[in-house]
This record gives sequence, structure tokens and C-alpha cells, in this order.
Amino acid sequence: MQTTRFEHPLNEKVRIYLRLEYLLLQIHHAHDSDDPWQYQVFFRALFDILDILDQVQVKSELAKDLDKQQLQIKQWLNVDGVDQTAVLALLDQIRSVHHSLISSPRLGQHLREDRFLAGIKQRFSLPGGSCCFDLPTLHHWLHLPFERKQADMTAWSSQLQPMARALQLWLKVTRESGQFKPRVARNGFFQHDAENASLLRLQVCPSYGVYPMISGHRSRFAVRFLPFDEGQTAAGNPVAECIEFTLAIC
Amino acid sequence: MQTTRFEHPLNEKVRIYLRLEYLLLQIHHAHDSDDPWQYQVFFRALFDILDILDQVQVKSELAKDLDKQQLQIKQWLNVDGVDQTAVLALLDQIRSVHHSLISSPRLGQHLREDRFLAGIKQRFSLPGGSCCFDLPTLHHWLHLPFERKQADMTAWSSQLQPMARALQLWLKVTRESGQFKPRVARNGFFQHDAENASLLRLQVCPSYGVYPMISGHRSRFAVRFLPFDEGQTAAGNPVAECIEFTLAIC
Repeated sequence: MQTTRFEHPLNEKVRIYLRLEYLLLQIHHAHDSDDPWQYQVFFRALFDILDILDQVQVKSELAKDLDKQQLQIKQWLNVDGVDQTAVLALLDQIRSVHHSLISSPRLGQHLREDRFLAGIKQRFSLPGGSCCFDLPTLHHWLHLPFERKQADMTAWSSQLQPMARALQLWLKVTRESGQFKPRVARNGFFQHDAENASLLRLQVCPSYGVYPMISGHRSRFAVRFLPFDEGQTAAGNPVAECIEFTLAIC
Repeated sequence: MQTTRFEHPLNEKVRIYLRLEYLLLQIHHAHDSDDPWQYQVFFRALFDILDILDQVQVKSELAKDLDKQQLQIKQWLNVDGVDQTAVLALLDQIRSVHHSLISSPRLGQHLREDRFLAGIKQRFSLPGGSCCFDLPTLHHWLHLPFERKQADMTAWSSQLQPMARALQLWLKVTRESGQFKPRVARNGFFQHDAENASLLRLQVCPSYGVYPMISGHRSRFAVRFLPFDEGQTAAGNPVAECIEFTLAIC
């Protein structure tokens, strides 16, 4: 059965991490696409990442979180029945991305200093502001050979690689720390303890026609399923009495 | 010889028209694409258009401009050597889009009142703000069947049709009012009278490695060609002494 997966961060840091991951995905996808409008997606995501990096100390926060994750994983060393090769390999991986992260220059610094990017960043956020007369340099760039543009995009995104690798690994290990379990929401509502978790992952069948609104923090959270189609809200019973879904608390 | 075309508006209204045309192009392209990230382009362009429509009285301005265009074209009626069938057909077309435009409801009103769109518009402009936890309704919508999404996008973009048709025609006739003529910029500089023109169109070969910065208004304008690659600016002679280009004053 096809389900839709929703993720919900249980603290502000994970909220930022998920946003960055989502933007990095867009950069990655746009980089490999030959669609002429993917450049919009690419630059928008790149500038959004720079805005986030200006506001949040992602580098130090992520390094600290990797440290914590390393300590947690070390608890599995010399435990009977645990694949020691896998644990050691994971610890190695974490050490490697941690090292690249902290030895990298200030995140996004080269991108901020890039004259071309700096020149287009400001107008890019105006409504329709990436028109050829607003940004003639961008317009010129868009007409450069495909290979040149690819090379530029590779160079720009490579600046974010140490962060991207660290983020991916931290999120991967975090996600794998929780298992999906079947749950039931009565009258569209479900609540549960979160026990210092970072992330909720929820899978629900789209045929219910609902989406989850999740609220909560480390200790406790609540899920309310709301009907997607407006028409249904007027009906007496807008959501199913029992909604079966799966939930992982990570 | 392949050239890059640049357009520059000579007044504020045409500046808005070109931005709207550019955003409508994005909507149109994203609508027909099956790329999963084109929805980013679609919604961003749609919301940018709504922002512009909130700030500018596009409907009345465009209707007035179509009126003026009609009067100009009427001067070609009964002029020897002018294809009268073409003139009459064009006048008919202008009358038709003018009528659709002024008889349409307030531009974008239905889109502003759409609960789904209104719900996602605000967060969409946050950096990375279209993440699944920021916009669970959007995330649900993205997982709906392709046909349903296409139908929604068709319905939304159809709301902008009267404006799009009027805009396209006005810009088409305006663009056709000027002819490309060969020009030469000495030391990267060129200036000329504009005689109440609305729009400049310029074509330059990308091999010069330059882009035009155009300044000016109705009466007079100046074009300065600047080197695109930073490296070249340090050199003694960053742009070619003679740059051949073509220019249409519309």
C-alpha cells in the first residue's frame, strides 16, 4: 500500500537540518537537470542556504551533534550480538565527516564572496526579479555553454559538501534509530511520549484524504489529522473515525 | 551567428509587464513538466504574480495601454500599401483581449481566496520554508495523482488567462513595432535617442564575453557593455574596442 511520509522535527536544530537537507536536495537535482528553469530552483535553494547559514551556527551545532551521536554509538561496542564491524565502520565515517566539517572554512564563505552570486542574490528575491533586465549578468550566464554552467554549479555546490556530508550522515543515523510501528488515531487524534527524541516520522495512506498537523517537543507530542479537501470540512464527520498509520520516534 | 537577446523596459509599467510575462512563462513551463521540483517553480511564480498584482493596478494600466495601441494601429487603416486585412484582424484581436480583460473579476482574486494557496503562500517565502513539516498540506498535495495536480494547476493558471492574453498581445505588437538595426559600441559605450519608446531589444554575440547595462528613459538611453568574467576586469582593455550588436527601439 502506497503511503505518504511526513517528518516532523522535535527541536529547532533538527528543523534547520531538515530544511537544509531539503534545499541541498533541490541543488543536487537542479545541478543534474537540463531543464532551462532548473536554474531558478538551483539559485533559490543556494541563496536560501546562505540565508540560513547567516542566521544559525550550523557548523558548530552539527559538530556537537555528531559528537553526541558518536558517544551513543560507542555504547554498542563490545555488546554481544551487535555487529562490531558495522559499529566500527560507522564510527569511522562519523569521525571522517566530523573532521571535514570542522576543518572547512566558515560555511558558505566562498559563496558569499563570489562576485557573480553576490550580484544576483539581492534581486533574486524580488517578485519576478530574475528577469533579464534586472539581472543581465545572470542572463548572460544562462546563455553560456552547458558545460561551463555545470562546472560553475559543481564548484558552488562543492563548497557545501562538508556540511552536506555531515548533515546526511547525522540524519541517516538519527532516522535509523527509530522503527516504524503501527498506530491508530481516534477521531483524527493521537498523542504519545517522545522521550528526548529529535524527529518523528509518520506514514499514512493518502486515501484517507488527510494530512497530519504535529505539535510538541522533546517530552510529548500530538498528531491531529485534518481533511485535505475543503469540501469535506463541511460534512459531519470530516475524517475517518480510525486512521491507521505508522510512526517512528527517532 | 548565435546571439544573446537582452530586453530593457524604458518605463515602470513595461518593467512590470516584462516581469509578469517572465513569471507566466515559468508557470506555463512548470505546468507542462513532470519534473518533481517544477512545483517549486510553479508556486513561486504564482505567488510572485499575486504580490505584483497586489502592488500595481495591472488591469486598468494594461487596458489603457491596449486602447493606445488600438489608436496607433487605426492610423494604418486606409493607408496605401498596408495590408488592410492584417490591420483589421489585429484590431479585432485587441478588442477581444481588451474585452476579456476588463470583464474579468479583480485579477488574482480567486487565487487569493483559495484556501490551499493562501495556506502555503506565507511560509513559501521563508528560506527552505516549503519543507513537509512547514507545509504538510503542500506535502499531501504533492503526493496526489499527477492528473489531480495537473487539473489544479490548470484551474489556477486559467485565472490569469485574461491578463496573460492581453499582456502577450500588447508585448507582441510593441516588439514588432521596432526593427533590429546594426549598431557599434565604441569602448563598450553606446547612446541614442529613444523618442517615447517603451522597450529596447538588443542582441549581442556571447563571444564578446560582455553583458549590457542599460540606463535611460523615454527620451534618451545609454548602453554600457561590461565584461562578464571577473578575471578580465583586471586586464588593461577588458572589453573589445568595437562591439557590434543589433538594437530595436520599440
